[in-house]
Amino acid sequence: MGYTDVDKLAINAIRLLAVDATFKSNSGHPGAPMGMAPVAHVLFNKIMRYNPKNSAWINRDRFVLSNGHACMLQYALLHIAGYKISMDDIKAFRSIDSITPGHPEAHDTDGVEVTTGPLGQGFSNAVGLAIAQHHAAGEFNKPGFELINNYTYTFLGDGCHMEGVASEAASLAGHLQLGNLIAIYDDNHISIDGDTNCAFTEDVALRFKAYGWHVEVVEDGDNDLEGIEAAIKKCQAVKDKPSMIKLRTTIGFGSLLEGTHGVHGAPLKVDDIKQVKTKFGFNPEQSFVVPQEVYDMYNKHGAEGAAAEKEWEQLFEKYGQQYKSEAADLKRRLTGDLPEGWEKNLPVYSPSDAAVASRKLSEIVLQKIHAAVPELMGGSADLTGSNLTRWKEAVDFQPPSLGIGDWSGRYIRYGVREHAMGAIMNGLAAYGTVIPYGGTFLNFVSYAAGAIRLSALSQVRAIWVATHDSIGLGEDGPTHQPIETLTHFRALPNCMVWRPADGNETSAAYYVALTSKHTPSIIALSRQNLPQLENSTIGHAIKGGYAVHEAEKADITLVSTGSEVGICVDAVKYLKEKHNLTARVVSIPCFEVFDAQPKEYRLSILPDGIPSLSVEVMSTMGWEKYTHEQFGLNRFGASGAYLDVYKKFEFTPEGISKRAVATVEFWKDVPNIRSPINRAFQQLI
Amino acid sequence: MGYTDVDKLAINAIRLLAVDATFKSNSGHPGAPMGMAPVAHVLFNKIMRYNPKNSAWINRDRFVLSNGHACMLQYALLHIAGYKISMDDIKAFRSIDSITPGHPEAHDTDGVEVTTGPLGQGFSNAVGLAIAQHHAAGEFNKPGFELINNYTYTFLGDGCHMEGVASEAASLAGHLQLGNLIAIYDDNHISIDGDTNCAFTEDVALRFKAYGWHVEVVEDGDNDLEGIEAAIKKCQAVKDKPSMIKLRTTIGFGSLLEGTHGVHGAPLKVDDIKQVKTKFGFNPEQSFVVPQEVYDMYNKHGAEGAAAEKEWEQLFEKYGQQYKSEAADLKRRLTGDLPEGWEKNLPVYSPSDAAVASRKLSEIVLQKIHAAVPELMGGSADLTGSNLTRWKEAVDFQPPSLGIGDWSGRYIRYGVREHAMGAIMNGLAAYGTVIPYGGTFLNFVSYAAGAIRLSALSQVRAIWVATHDSIGLGEDGPTHQPIETLTHFRALPNCMVWRPADGNETSAAYYVALTSKHTPSIIALSRQNLPQLENSTIGHAIKGGYAVHEAEKADITLVSTGSEVGICVDAVKYLKEKHNLTARVVSIPCFEVFDAQPKEYRLSILPDGIPSLSVEVMSTMGWEKYTHEQFGLNRFGASGAYLDVYKKFEFTPEGISKRAVATVEFWKDVPNIRSPINRAFQQLI
Repeated sequence: MGYTDVDKLAINAIRLLAVDATFKSNSGHPGAPMGMAPVAHVLFNKIMRYNPKNSAWINRDRFVLSNGHACMLQYALLHIAGYKISMDDIKAFRSIDSITPGHPEAHDTDGVEVTTGPLGQGFSNAVGLAIAQHHAAGEFNKPGFELINNYTYTFLGDGCHMEGVASEAASLAGHLQLGNLIAIYDDNHISIDGDTNCAFTEDVALRFKAYGWHVEVVEDGDNDLEGIEAAIKKCQAVKDKPSMIKLRTTIGFGSLLEGTHGVHGAPLKVDDIKQVKTKFGFNPEQSFVVPQEVYDMYNKHGAEGAAAEKEWEQLFEKYGQQYKSEAADLKRRLTGDLPEGWEKNLPVYSPSDAAVASRKLSEIVLQKIHAAVPELMGGSADLTGSNLTRWKEAVDFQPPSLGIGDWSGRYIRYGVREHAMGAIMNGLAAYGTVIPYGGTFLNFVSYAAGAIRLSALSQVRAIWVATHDSIGLGEDGPTHQPIETLTHFRALPNCMVWRPADGNETSAAYYVALTSKHTPSIIALSRQNLPQLENSTIGHAIKGGYAVHEAEKADITLVSTGSEVGICVDAVKYLKEKHNLTARVVSIPCFEVFDAQPKEYRLSILPDGIPSLSVEVMSTMGWEKYTHEQFGLNRFGASGAYLDVYKKFEFTPEGISKRAVATVEFWKDVPNIRSPINRAFQQLI
Repeated sequence: MGYTDVDKLAINAIRLLAVDATFKSNSGHPGAPMGMAPVAHVLFNKIMRYNPKNSAWINRDRFVLSNGHACMLQYALLHIAGYKISMDDIKAFRSIDSITPGHPEAHDTDGVEVTTGPLGQGFSNAVGLAIAQHHAAGEFNKPGFELINNYTYTFLGDGCHMEGVASEAASLAGHLQLGNLIAIYDDNHISIDGDTNCAFTEDVALRFKAYGWHVEVVEDGDNDLEGIEAAIKKCQAVKDKPSMIKLRTTIGFGSLLEGTHGVHGAPLKVDDIKQVKTKFGFNPEQSFVVPQEVYDMYNKHGAEGAAAEKEWEQLFEKYGQQYKSEAADLKRRLTGDLPEGWEKNLPVYSPSDAAVASRKLSEIVLQKIHAAVPELMGGSADLTGSNLTRWKEAVDFQPPSLGIGDWSGRYIRYGVREHAMGAIMNGLAAYGTVIPYGGTFLNFVSYAAGAIRLSALSQVRAIWVATHDSIGLGEDGPTHQPIETLTHFRALPNCMVWRPADGNETSAAYYVALTSKHTPSIIALSRQNLPQLENSTIGHAIKGGYAVHEAEKADITLVSTGSEVGICVDAVKYLKEKHNLTARVVSIPCFEVFDAQPKEYRLSILPDGIPSLSVEVMSTMGWEKYTHEQFGLNRFGASGAYLDVYKKFEFTPEGISKRAVATVEFWKDVPNIRSPINRAFQQLI
């Protein structure tokens, strides 16, 4: 409390940095930064505990700008607060290869916790950060050692509130009683289409109360700094509920267009800039100005944060003396490395082992590794018994008061909230102490496309356990049978899509997923049983593609994934007996990983000289890059017993053989058949 | 009121049909049908107005089973009520090619309004049906002629309530004051993971009040038929709000496992079936039994519905005398055919016309055709000024009390609710009187993937105006720049993805989208200006692919879409001048449509004998089926001015030429280069 003219100066300096940067780049959103500068200043200068010189301190307060289009607000704050963002970086706003892109990107910019912009995501990430914080506290805090007690703050606007992903996350956050989560709602009555009255007239505060949140209201967010601070402190004191502050602000405060959507997504005009600078007591002829006393004020707060971190380090050192293994575990987790030797727990299979559904093989992996990989924290979007995502001894992550779990629990009941699950996993991973996985049917991973795109872009290690991966799920029918899904995520950059064919490939999928620190994975798993294959080993499968069945002087290469690999192996016999054709079989459980192998290796798997045929019970799109011909399903599936469905669409040894014969016939006159691995030029990466 | 033993008999017969069918198919969900049979019976036998002999009557009450896994409930009702579902169809539940698949599919089964199962969708479809109903009433009702006044009823469970898409739709429905929408919430406290207490403890009734809904509660949904009927009638009487009835039921009522998730998704055991049949007074040795008095009771109700339809037809005849053109318009709309000659309004361009952004070209189409196509009803997910989805004279679809539009308005302010927009469009299209379109950025179409999949599966004519379609959007950066999106939807069966290159192609996209009665379309449109191309005509473009620039004895074919076609045309000059190579240029604005052309035509566009190179600023996945080499962007984009971004990734005449030279070089020693159009065998369709 006790706000001075320097506070006002700081607020106006933040506003004007947003004005200047959007004007210079002739692009961007000045309105929300101008409206939210007061609360942002209070939060960053009076409330939040952080050390700008070490943005990796685990117990720092987290800040998420869910309305990411307002990123000049965040860049301005991070710059003034002393993070690695210079005034030149601010001037380079929205220009190529700058660290101040059009929306905040976590892997680019110091102090940015998560990548935001697509609406609803940041708020949901914040729920993930808060879950991770409560979980880490549950795991690591000890009497006298409150190692982990940071808050997570998030700003969001009307746009985020309208997105379903945020509703899902808010409902779960209320259920989980995440007391250290505080959301600040920029209630400015303006969205892009104009007044929110045209589409958004619900009572947001009442809705959040229905979710079980604590709600505060601040009527004058433009000026009432004391009120803002008091509201935040009230929220901090509510320990058994997440909190939302409904903050009435004026978008574009100070502009001639303040309070209208005219100031939302376009720079201010020259005259307007001059008047607002004059009004704020700044020199209208100068740009990108931060008075020294503002820097000083933030330096002081940053120094307090650095001192707090130092104090924390001392506490942690004492903790380490008393809780040696816990301290070592926490330290290791923060590096992102897995415990040494964890991979020895991965199950290994031989061909004589029984046929098992790969969703079950996945369950066995989780059962075997969960003790060795304590940072593994998973759940399911209300399909636990189908996804098989829970190891036997798992404890649910729940507020202890419910009596069905505790904060240290590692199993999350997400409810039927796939999109929020994806976004929450991004937040969980960003916190630093857990590796998240989440289960649903492969078909409903698509509900979370918006979140997974950000996992990939922001280089997050999140794992989707995506069961019921094809028409092989049978009776549930076309509404549940994926056709386009693998293609979709294979086309997403920096996303591994796995479709293991047996036990060893399933272990390989987990091995690569867990050791890839900067890439999300989707593991597509069957409902039906799959045989253990002849030449399948973890070592082979971690290359993304390998020969399951090799043959000299083969007439054709059959290339497949998952449940169809075994059928291809059966087709080999059929082709020999009925057509006297020799086939080899290649499994490519992961395109992304196979593509990363040296060309020589890839050519050894998909060699020149013989034609190839891909076999996968879904869209053929994308398979042309590996094979000459494609057998797939470019239509919707059918409801029926699984074998009936496979038979209807001819995914049988006979049906595959028919197409293999046609392929051999079609390519027989082509001399020197070239493997599709050969390309005229390299793709940009 | 005045419920008799026959009512109870009917309810138990419905329950037992679900028990028998799931047992016979050894698959499916008996629990929800057994729990909801009472409310379903009240609704279908006492409340709803429908003629089972004509499921297309426009003013019928609509029923949507949002918890589509409970479909045996719907099939049982439709069978007993006299729709075209025989007892043999019931017995064929969940078997190949039956009309009773694992989840309800609208295009397969008489009386099923929309395809449901993926949770949250059906409820949101119901919001769309209710919007269409209010809109049709606004357009066609006249004093003394209340032609359109049907109700829309939807059942939903906890699963649907947890899905964000349903939250979005509920918020919009509350805003829109859709009085004729009544949702019945199966509050059974059970989801797949067990008790809802583990993940879903919010106050649903309060949340819906916050959205502006009227809420009724019925405590004993298992027995209190009078209470159910009274609640529905109270909801009918509330005209300025949608209504929800929170109905406490027992999942699997009558089973030994009633009230547990054990009865949710697996057939009852033999002993349990015997005891429940005995308990309900049925012969435990018989299956698939509906007592004649139950059929009689429903026949009577069906006859009342038929009489109501007859009365309506008489009213409509009188209406036709007084309002000739309105009646003709309504009749025509119900056929799905567009007004004769509407297409003459499509704008046509010549190469000398100015370069225009295709989002603007799309706006011009809407401006020119909206009067000729009165069933066109569109909107945007809060990006109207960016998507350019609104013609100048448009009136907003709003409840008149808000003073910003009326029920007859054709422009919907969806708010930032892409997923609900997609699901609502499915409901709008299903009603029969409108053709829906909706705008957002292409990147955020992915948020609605779950809904679009159902548009395609259920063969719905819905149109996405997807602007800002690539890295060409510039400064907003990678969070907003689509890479995988076109591949994703091109891989979705029965979905047209258009990326027009200029004005005539944009007109062609709308022409095909609007005349394809059974296929959704996504029209990807640029933010930046595009030149009008030399050989582009609507006639060419409606074939999905054609030569924009033809050349004799060409060395290479450049194949492209949208904003890159013009750059390819520029590259032709560059290639000739700098490398003395002759290139021809092909535009393929729509894969799906091009694929439907005769092979001879496709081969004339992508001929044998010369190598080809695709150019598109996004994922190359899928382009291998048309071209030998691919130039694309298999990584995320960058934030900066659009030309800088294109330059960074070398999408310039020079960058294209470099790859074209490499392509010619790489293929020069291959004799008889085969066009990828040639295939060894046909795909299953």
